[in-house]
Amino acid sequence: MFHPNSIAVVGASNSPSSMGYSYVHHLMNHGYRGRVYPVTRRWPEVLGLRAYPSVRDIPDPVDYVICCIPASQVVEMLAECSEKGVKVVHFYTGRFRETGKEDGIQVEREVLRRAREYSIRILGPNCMGLYYPKGGMAFAYGLPPEPGKVGMFSQSGGAATEFVRYASLRGIRFSKVISYGNALDLNEADFLEYLCDDPETQIIAGYLEDSKAGVRFLNILSRAASNKPVIVLKAGRGKAGIMMTASHTGALAGSVKTWEAAIRQAGAIHVRTLEEMTDQVASFYFLPKITGTRVGIGGAGGGRSVLSADEWEEAGFTVAPLPPEIEEFIRARVPALWWGWIGNPIDISILPDEARQTSLDKQILRMMANSNNFDLVVVILNVGAPFSQADLIANVQGQVEDVIDMHKKAINPLAVVVDMGSLGIENFGDPWWRCLAESKSKLLAAKIPVYHTATQAASSIMRLVDYYRRRSEFHPNLAWTRHHSGSQE
Amino acid sequence: MFHPNSIAVVGASNSPSSMGYSYVHHLMNHGYRGRVYPVTRRWPEVLGLRAYPSVRDIPDPVDYVICCIPASQVVEMLAECSEKGVKVVHFYTGRFRETGKEDGIQVEREVLRRAREYSIRILGPNCMGLYYPKGGMAFAYGLPPEPGKVGMFSQSGGAATEFVRYASLRGIRFSKVISYGNALDLNEADFLEYLCDDPETQIIAGYLEDSKAGVRFLNILSRAASNKPVIVLKAGRGKAGIMMTASHTGALAGSVKTWEAAIRQAGAIHVRTLEEMTDQVASFYFLPKITGTRVGIGGAGGGRSVLSADEWEEAGFTVAPLPPEIEEFIRARVPALWWGWIGNPIDISILPDEARQTSLDKQILRMMANSNNFDLVVVILNVGAPFSQADLIANVQGQVEDVIDMHKKAINPLAVVVDMGSLGIENFGDPWWRCLAESKSKLLAAKIPVYHTATQAASSIMRLVDYYRRRSEFHPNLAWTRHHSGSQE
Repeated sequence: MFHPNSIAVVGASNSPSSMGYSYVHHLMNHGYRGRVYPVTRRWPEVLGLRAYPSVRDIPDPVDYVICCIPASQVVEMLAECSEKGVKVVHFYTGRFRETGKEDGIQVEREVLRRAREYSIRILGPNCMGLYYPKGGMAFAYGLPPEPGKVGMFSQSGGAATEFVRYASLRGIRFSKVISYGNALDLNEADFLEYLCDDPETQIIAGYLEDSKAGVRFLNILSRAASNKPVIVLKAGRGKAGIMMTASHTGALAGSVKTWEAAIRQAGAIHVRTLEEMTDQVASFYFLPKITGTRVGIGGAGGGRSVLSADEWEEAGFTVAPLPPEIEEFIRARVPALWWGWIGNPIDISILPDEARQTSLDKQILRMMANSNNFDLVVVILNVGAPFSQADLIANVQGQVEDVIDMHKKAINPLAVVVDMGSLGIENFGDPWWRCLAESKSKLLAAKIPVYHTATQAASSIMRLVDYYRRRSEFHPNLAWTRHHSGSQE
Repeated sequence: MFHPNSIAVVGASNSPSSMGYSYVHHLMNHGYRGRVYPVTRRWPEVLGLRAYPSVRDIPDPVDYVICCIPASQVVEMLAECSEKGVKVVHFYTGRFRETGKEDGIQVEREVLRRAREYSIRILGPNCMGLYYPKGGMAFAYGLPPEPGKVGMFSQSGGAATEFVRYASLRGIRFSKVISYGNALDLNEADFLEYLCDDPETQIIAGYLEDSKAGVRFLNILSRAASNKPVIVLKAGRGKAGIMMTASHTGALAGSVKTWEAAIRQAGAIHVRTLEEMTDQVASFYFLPKITGTRVGIGGAGGGRSVLSADEWEEAGFTVAPLPPEIEEFIRARVPALWWGWIGNPIDISILPDEARQTSLDKQILRMMANSNNFDLVVVILNVGAPFSQADLIANVQGQVEDVIDMHKKAINPLAVVVDMGSLGIENFGDPWWRCLAESKSKLLAAKIPVYHTATQAASSIMRLVDYYRRRSEFHPNLAWTRHHSGSQE
């Protein structure tokens, strides 16, 4: 499926708004190295490639077919695929079972019967198919060309597209993304199993509305989660969702509670929204294994520090007191300040000017980052100071440089929290918001995760800690290899 | 306090990084219309204004003093203020009680004793003071010059600064913001009472770490919340926060649960984070009174629609079925499609091309917006389609124009959900992200609230519904005037 020597796009088109155009375009644009055969009766060429009136007319063998023609024509096409030795057909084509109509269900059954007869595996129908940047395959515009280490399987193509587009802004890149739609033949259990054993995939994310594979899916989930982090978003949890849950034999029906419990019991991580999934994947992407909950926090003024302490504590972390050696250090540098006022979080607004000029706060952060008394250090970019824009910018730039430098030597993982603002077009030229965007780009380039709020950071990192802790409990005698290359690479 | 005829800035300075410079700068920059007297022995002029060596040397009466000199000098200054007939002194000056040291506490007591003796009211100490855009007063750079209808009181100046800067990106503007720090004299209860009766303030937001006024605060909170929406963020909820809670007589100590219960019992709204507060204020700012929970959703494809239904249902809304007249409408337009497949949320990905060309989805949304079967209509900007960038942009621009037009005539309130992305500096030139930012700007200009996620929208709008419902229950016989000018203005 991921390594076809040749691909035919059936229903190829020169009309740029059609998927028959897009699939051919993406193969060319993402650098697919095999041969591409557009199949259409309307054009002699598609995007400069010679087109064929039917699959049968292609002179060479075809491994993989992307099918964009209407459902009424697919049974005949399958017969031609059989003649050509096609191994996998991806049906972008929809209007099958998902319509709820009897004729759609009937055609789907016939497609499956034929595929089994011809030994052709089916991806879909009613799905976007594959995004495999390393192999030059993509299903939508705006997906990054460079590969990464997240594998995803998604029942919804729109959810997969949106996830890839937004997660890529967070520095996340993908090994393989599979949009599988109706899962007529290959289903979520097959894809999860594949990604579990795929060396290119180090983190797995899955979007499900129901599960055809049911118990088999849960068994594989358990094995996969013991191997690498698996994050599952079960959608269709409400009234509408439960109504949608398939009643097929073996399908995993039941309430969201059942699902959540099953996912957790398998050792995987359940998230509720695509945004939570993005934060969760970012955490595994950039952070190493963390099993402790002692967090050191610095970088902001009073109110933001108090709130951050609340948010990290409420997520399950301990905002640990400063250890004696850091207290000693502060006492030696600013004796006039030391009577226990400076604590964790480090409230930079109480530092006198002299202490700020010698970067006392940054020195304390650096000590936290190298202290066995902390498991994680969080730097809040200081966006609440009353300073002029030039001073705010200089301040944040200094923080960013320091964090990046600290990260090179620190024994503890670092995370940065900054709200980059809900920008309108009128803010795009503003040096302050540009500075925050630039800061984020630099931090991600240095492989430091950037979160927008303390709550998002704390809850996703707590789930990471919880994952590694449970994995150690389940398999106490195994020495786990490091699956995520993140920050220590 | 808000209408002084003259202001002296004690500790004024020509050094741009000092607050003694900033306060003078802000008064000039925000168009304060009274007289400004810089007080400093170091310069004959500050920012082009004649400076005086002491308050006593000012030739005219002074109403209001902003004090930026060290704590050790403030008692003497107070005596001079008394001679000049000063009514209010705002102490930016810190290093009092908040240090936890006995000498700081002693000076604070002496300041209070003197102020009572001289009949001078104190704002602070250890606070940023006032942001009153209409009156030309501000305490930080980057606060919008134009006034609005949100009044805020905040124990933390950093939290207030950050809140104003970020909320203003969401289209929110302020009547009066009071950063009050240690609340030595005037405290949260006084400010809340003032904002409750202030005709310029239609929504109140408060950030508290503790409450000196205790029971009096809660009594005023109850009256204020029956008058206009009051949103309270209680920070310092964790271990550190409870330790910080003042042990003064009358102070409201106790756990976060006590606080939450008390805030709710008063009829106000409790939020946990500044981000929640921003969404909550945005909801009251732009939406009218809503007491029903039937939501109509449209604009996105399958996965995003399913997730949105989940998120709105989980927040307490009912994703109501399409009423018969809308079903009839769809049946008449696309008979081939009508067998109950199209529902709420409207999944645009299942519409055939013909239906999209005639904007069937938008017509259905428009009917929802004018149907008594819905209390709120939510439009999701379609960011998950596989289209090319040009098509995505055209699509979203069409959605935005349509929502703005719909909003002019709709009987139901509208809200828009769009994640504008976590942009790095490299994305600032990208037409797609610029299009989303432009969309947001246009929607806010049309007074339509824009949320980044369904969860944020649903939870804050649910709290709005809850607020209006409880207010009706508490005061069933009162005809409430409309406090928020929001969308129907």
